[in-house]
Amino acid sequence: MTFLSGLISFVSSTIYEHWNKYTAKCMIPLMRPFKHPAANELSLERVLYALSDSIRLDIVRQLARVEVATCGELDGGRPKSTVSHHFKVLREAGLVFTKNNGTNHMNTLRREDIESRFPGLLDAILTQKSD
Amino acid sequence: MTFLSGLISFVSSTIYEHWNKYTAKCMIPLMRPFKHPAANELSLERVLYALSDSIRLDIVRQLARVEVATCGELDGGRPKSTVSHHFKVLREAGLVFTKNNGTNHMNTLRREDIESRFPGLLDAILTQKSD
Repeated sequence: MTFLSGLISFVSSTIYEHWNKYTAKCMIPLMRPFKHPAANELSLERVLYALSDSIRLDIVRQLARVEVATCGELDGGRPKSTVSHHFKVLREAGLVFTKNNGTNHMNTLRREDIESRFPGLLDAILTQKSD
Repeated sequence: MTFLSGLISFVSSTIYEHWNKYTAKCMIPLMRPFKHPAANELSLERVLYALSDSIRLDIVRQLARVEVATCGELDGGRPKSTVSHHFKVLREAGLVFTKNNGTNHMNTLRREDIESRFPGLLDAILTQKSD
């Protein structure tokens, strides 16, 4: 009886383990949509902070020249973890809108929202020479 | 002989101690001039970072309205240690020039330097509504 219950326990735990491995491999991760502040919630200080970093300024300058771009097209070969943080700051400031498109993140510059809230600000910054 | 050398040692150390206390009281602390970056050394990212804080933005807005002001006139009743840090950030960004005048620090906005390096930037920021 002890041998039988041991055998059942072993078989069930083995099946459970393999099932977990199988599902972990096959599961497509659920991509939650990114959060973005509304245009009337944008903060001048947060926008200036987001643009006070040369990597983020470079991303915004690139996005100002194209309509839409993936993170990979904008990262300049920088490590993914670093770039992810910068995109988060840009999104939270309301400068960048990111949309999931399959496994890609498609980014656009929220030019109209920024312009309606802070007229002339973005051009005055992006036309300057930085370091 | 031992008593005499002990007496001499006691008297000399007492005189030395009192002299130190006297000079410490009477010495006027030497105020070193503040360091400021040259106009051609100003960094766009550093200027934007300096203006990404509501207290510093408020100080710069006040300075834009007057020719010169002491730290006390600009601090809005905030603690001295907090305000000192903010003035340091503003000086290092090249936005504010601070000069010693007796025991006061006189501050001016480096409007011409900022304008020559980043045309239109300061007005585009200071005319915006912040939080």
